[in-house]
Amino acid sequence: MVHRPWSIVKIMKLSIVLSTQPAQFQAATFKGDLETNLARIASLGYNGVELAIRDPKLVDLDTLDGLVCKYNLKVPAMGTGQAWGEEGLSFTDPDPTVRRAAIERIQSHIPVAARFESIIIIGLIRGIVKPGVRDEQAMNWLIDALRECSESAQPHGIQLALEPINRYETTLINNAAQGLELIKRVGADNFGLLLDTFHMNIEEAVIENSIRVCRRHIFHFHVADSNRWHPGAGHLNFKAILETMTSIDYQGWISGEFLPKPDAETAAREGITYLNQI
Amino acid sequence: MVHRPWSIVKIMKLSIVLSTQPAQFQAATFKGDLETNLARIASLGYNGVELAIRDPKLVDLDTLDGLVCKYNLKVPAMGTGQAWGEEGLSFTDPDPTVRRAAIERIQSHIPVAARFESIIIIGLIRGIVKPGVRDEQAMNWLIDALRECSESAQPHGIQLALEPINRYETTLINNAAQGLELIKRVGADNFGLLLDTFHMNIEEAVIENSIRVCRRHIFHFHVADSNRWHPGAGHLNFKAILETMTSIDYQGWISGEFLPKPDAETAAREGITYLNQI
Repeated sequence: MVHRPWSIVKIMKLSIVLSTQPAQFQAATFKGDLETNLARIASLGYNGVELAIRDPKLVDLDTLDGLVCKYNLKVPAMGTGQAWGEEGLSFTDPDPTVRRAAIERIQSHIPVAARFESIIIIGLIRGIVKPGVRDEQAMNWLIDALRECSESAQPHGIQLALEPINRYETTLINNAAQGLELIKRVGADNFGLLLDTFHMNIEEAVIENSIRVCRRHIFHFHVADSNRWHPGAGHLNFKAILETMTSIDYQGWISGEFLPKPDAETAAREGITYLNQI
Repeated sequence: MVHRPWSIVKIMKLSIVLSTQPAQFQAATFKGDLETNLARIASLGYNGVELAIRDPKLVDLDTLDGLVCKYNLKVPAMGTGQAWGEEGLSFTDPDPTVRRAAIERIQSHIPVAARFESIIIIGLIRGIVKPGVRDEQAMNWLIDALRECSESAQPHGIQLALEPINRYETTLINNAAQGLELIKRVGADNFGLLLDTFHMNIEEAVIENSIRVCRRHIFHFHVADSNRWHPGAGHLNFKAILETMTSIDYQGWISGEFLPKPDAETAAREGITYLNQI
């Protein structure tokens, strides 16, 4: 790797997660009060905002578009997991109407993603393996849903990124190796991975090796420290992690998804300050 | 710290977790078939076996004593969490009869612990905060139960060690700082902590600092790597961790509690080989 005398992070695009409505999900750093939050995020130096959107039809897209333009922010990705957390929609529910609703919900993100040039994140909407469902059956439902959604997104130039999530939150795709196997089985060029350092700390034997193995399949990247606080609050080696991202020529965004602790603004400020110092 | 040219671990006492009955708890490395397992554990070079005992009255203590003597193994600690996992006993259940049963269960471990000179581990039997219970109420129940159990154990020279457990498994005492605060409130000399590297990887900002802060309050110590596999299978820095344990003059045991992956025997062998190489 070429030695770079300047900050690694300053050449990367940084965003942070913001929920467009009050969310149960704890790790959405900023919640509610849209314009105030966008103004804060921009003033802290972030280049983009990753939006957690439960249901696109509940979001006033013109207002949102106006606001992100006003604060000169990009929207690199949109999270969809609140549809699972708050409505129970999932690709792997034994009830076919629930599975269909989950697929249609993701499809309803496509025009929004096209407008904002965002990646659509497949997080917990993939579901968990419910009692009475065989693992293989759940995996087949998941693959079918991902194929259908990727196919719908493809003509719009939209990418889907599935996030491996640690063992405590789901049993379906916990690590990078399982993510790569899934990519093979789905077989769509616009379907890839979102890696998250908090989950990787638990699931990957060596974080940097997993990044190297996933390489061009990494469509999006979340940073949180080992304790899910902002980078710098735990013991992850972000220098090594971001150097590895540079070494694989990652062109996407680095997006902060961490707990709003001690409060959202402090977390966002400390996180970007820490990353910029690397 | 004085430089030690020999292995740090060879001067420490190593044990491994063994369940005395089939357990749901995944991280008990060896399950069932008592004598075969004790023979294997001894042959791999472990000096002790940490026993997970759901209910002491179901264990044939004379046979157990005979077997551990036969294989020249110590029993540094006994786990009690299966009483929670399989019977729902807990110090913080809203039902007072369940709380009483949990206290009596721990008290029933005292004569067994005295016979084997073991520490009694307080893991998941502390419970979780159930819906409708205020956190403060749960904490008060926990403190009352720990005081009562510590008081019962004290005349027998038996120590109790509470294990901070990561956020996904309980909301009561996740980290070392909360453990130290609890120790202050319980106020019993024979009540201390069991630190576990798998949980620390998620909860402690800097693992070595937490070890230094807990110092003489560490009664017992669990090792598993970041992915809960055997040490060496993940990215924890066991050299730094064990050097820190040496630097605080830790006199207790290092006990392997990790997943039986790829299988129990391989895990136990790889774990001890890795630790001995440090």
